[in-house]
Amino acid sequence: MPPTAIRGPFLHLIDDPFYRPISDCLRYLPDGLMVVENGIIVEIGPYAELKNRYAQLPLTHYPNKIIVPGFIDTHVHFPQTEIIAAYGEQLLTWLDRYIFPTEQKFSDRAYALTVAEHFLDELLRHGTTTALVFTSVYPQSTDAFFEAAQARNLRMIAGKVLMDRHAPEALLDTPDTAYSDSRQLIEKWHQQDRLLYAVTPRFAITSTPEQLRAAGRLLQDFPDVYMHTHLSENTAEIAWTNELFPEAGSYLGVYDQAGLLGKRSVFAHGVHLSETELCRLSECECAIAHCPTSNLFLGSGLFPLHQAKNPDRPVKVALGTDVGAGTSFSLLRTGGEAYKVAQLQQQSLDPFQALFLATLGGAQALCLEDKIGSFIPGKEADFIVLDPQATPTLAFRNQPYLSVLNPALNSALNSELSEADADDRSHQGDIANERQMADLRSLIFSLFILGDERAIHATHIAGMLV
Amino acid sequence: MPPTAIRGPFLHLIDDPFYRPISDCLRYLPDGLMVVENGIIVEIGPYAELKNRYAQLPLTHYPNKIIVPGFIDTHVHFPQTEIIAAYGEQLLTWLDRYIFPTEQKFSDRAYALTVAEHFLDELLRHGTTTALVFTSVYPQSTDAFFEAAQARNLRMIAGKVLMDRHAPEALLDTPDTAYSDSRQLIEKWHQQDRLLYAVTPRFAITSTPEQLRAAGRLLQDFPDVYMHTHLSENTAEIAWTNELFPEAGSYLGVYDQAGLLGKRSVFAHGVHLSETELCRLSECECAIAHCPTSNLFLGSGLFPLHQAKNPDRPVKVALGTDVGAGTSFSLLRTGGEAYKVAQLQQQSLDPFQALFLATLGGAQALCLEDKIGSFIPGKEADFIVLDPQATPTLAFRNQPYLSVLNPALNSALNSELSEADADDRSHQGDIANERQMADLRSLIFSLFILGDERAIHATHIAGMLV
Repeated sequence: MPPTAIRGPFLHLIDDPFYRPISDCLRYLPDGLMVVENGIIVEIGPYAELKNRYAQLPLTHYPNKIIVPGFIDTHVHFPQTEIIAAYGEQLLTWLDRYIFPTEQKFSDRAYALTVAEHFLDELLRHGTTTALVFTSVYPQSTDAFFEAAQARNLRMIAGKVLMDRHAPEALLDTPDTAYSDSRQLIEKWHQQDRLLYAVTPRFAITSTPEQLRAAGRLLQDFPDVYMHTHLSENTAEIAWTNELFPEAGSYLGVYDQAGLLGKRSVFAHGVHLSETELCRLSECECAIAHCPTSNLFLGSGLFPLHQAKNPDRPVKVALGTDVGAGTSFSLLRTGGEAYKVAQLQQQSLDPFQALFLATLGGAQALCLEDKIGSFIPGKEADFIVLDPQATPTLAFRNQPYLSVLNPALNSALNSELSEADADDRSHQGDIANERQMADLRSLIFSLFILGDERAIHATHIAGMLV
Repeated sequence: MPPTAIRGPFLHLIDDPFYRPISDCLRYLPDGLMVVENGIIVEIGPYAELKNRYAQLPLTHYPNKIIVPGFIDTHVHFPQTEIIAAYGEQLLTWLDRYIFPTEQKFSDRAYALTVAEHFLDELLRHGTTTALVFTSVYPQSTDAFFEAAQARNLRMIAGKVLMDRHAPEALLDTPDTAYSDSRQLIEKWHQQDRLLYAVTPRFAITSTPEQLRAAGRLLQDFPDVYMHTHLSENTAEIAWTNELFPEAGSYLGVYDQAGLLGKRSVFAHGVHLSETELCRLSECECAIAHCPTSNLFLGSGLFPLHQAKNPDRPVKVALGTDVGAGTSFSLLRTGGEAYKVAQLQQQSLDPFQALFLATLGGAQALCLEDKIGSFIPGKEADFIVLDPQATPTLAFRNQPYLSVLNPALNSALNSELSEADADDRSHQGDIANERQMADLRSLIFSLFILGDERAIHATHIAGMLV
């Protein structure tokens, strides 16, 4: 692939703004140039500095937009695409009434492939370029998913669901087939192109202790695969789990005793965790996928984000849409509802923190921060182009802040600095001043609160527009 | 205006589904014909029955869509359009930081007119055909709003804001000017075309007892105008109100002692009301505007809808977007968040109940149920056309339910009834059977949870497409 160049306003985070001052974490190039070769970022900097060197490259220009790293969805179920917005239940009855019947269709590989393709097109349309994905219990559905993801050259992580009890017979595997089918899928798909595998027990209720131990053996045998499951979503679920595993001491303890905690372990929800459980997650470098649209839709509760992010025992947190219990594929909508969930707890969520959760935070949760999540040379060039004027509502609201996307006006903002200082700061992509920061914050916030897939002006995978 | 006819699937409610079985309240014509003359519905019934009689009329056909009454937004602030999605505060600091500075711009009549026009275009684009609207403290902003609404032939209720303390000087009126300016506006606008006036004290905190009494005098002097204010939104607001009015006994008591409770009184929010206050609202036939997107956005709390709708002392409840604290002009989005707020309280909200809140429930809250909110001959023909395939997400999810919009398939569904019975039921628009009800419920639910203004295929005002 010949190298290409992308010009426009670039915004990304290079560190965790829950733990460091936001201005230290944020990088903004009002008029940047990014050079991509073979899907990899080879250089990024101010357009004015780089333009002569790369004058011969084909250039895509996105003026008045905001280019950010592709969104990362750390918890989503592809077989539930068709059952999004199913009415009237909370978690356990919702599973019985809607999800288990639907997932049985995924024994049909052709059907699974059709849905996987639609699902991935939806992700891209919504600006999501990487996801950690539940398939179904049927290995053929996992094959179908990976096939569709490979065809699109996506960095995706997925796994066959493990469940050997408390679900319809047709959906059950066994500890043995859980092990052998997963092993086969790992050998077939893990590290193929940009694909990665996650051992995926549905949740404690639907796996026997034997099956959870089989999952633990898989993680021992393949130490660089992921583990992906649900944790502490709903109070009735927690009560039943405690009944089923009285010796585990806690919900997290169930997974812990099976050897499922590690730095590539991602737990969806974690709405009702104790401080002890959070400490253990921190110790083991596990991640939580915060799924606010789902937690509201199923009435599961309010995830205590700021408690989870306590710097004294840091826990990796990222965002999950959790479609089909989640109500949108959009990480913008998801971040917007994360803000509302924080507000209900009398806390706030800075839009740059939300942007972190949706990008670099997701990459860190997936131990992929060396590959995706920010615009650092050497990383993969999955990025999206946000349009802060995508709807009449956004355009009207954002009028006062758009000048921050205009390179000429941004230079003017820098005039309070000495020329040398300003050059140096702009070269690094440091935030120029408080006005620039405030205007960017307002634009990004508007996209989380008011935006959706219409605000995704373009999605690029490994540099290529899709 | 010559008569016109609209053909398609018509869905509406004729009674309150919180108090009567939903099937008794719901009317569905899978293939209906509505005849409109001079903006008024003159006839509605099955297309097959009426087509010969009205064969000469110009016909607009909406196959595979759902035609419902125009949405009614019972609480929204037009001057806050530009400040929607303002970051980082809860009610009182949000007012100080964002709202009071913005509202000062509305002393400029030309500016107010520009915003009013944009605001009304936004309402129509989102399928809202009637609203109860806060303007600003400046009478010229109220004039501008009514002028823009009159030019669009809309049924709108609005009023000048009354506030004489606890806000920037430039935003304050006095008890006397509150009375005289409101009186002048009432005489100028109330009952002009489709416009109605609401006496609009902002809330207890920003009005002296004298001003609230002046508002009470206006209601005595003009007994058919409305009263529109805020009530019990946020705990800090309630505490301050109780400090300011220690003798009132409760937040609602503040308004009660000023004579502001009546059947045309609409109170926004009511998140934290006591049972005593709910009883008093019931007694006085007051209405509550439930504003879930706002209550989540500002972290105000969870409105206890099912408690408010207790049939033992019924309180009228409808939906409000409360833009700018609300995060969408869409009553679909608002109903979707009302569902989530109910779920968080372990309650459910049937999609037909949500549709009621957005249509006939709004009309009842505004004492306009003889004019709007359902498809009854003699009512005004404000209606909207919903598209259950408006986005790829909706289209994929709704595939299994679309047959309920197909007249031929609906007749087949009726085959279990005798022909005479089926004819009789379909003539009345009764729900034909459980399958029809379930499919419609699923479609309507999907629109509340996944829909937004894209799902508003068309908006008709007094029969005319806008």
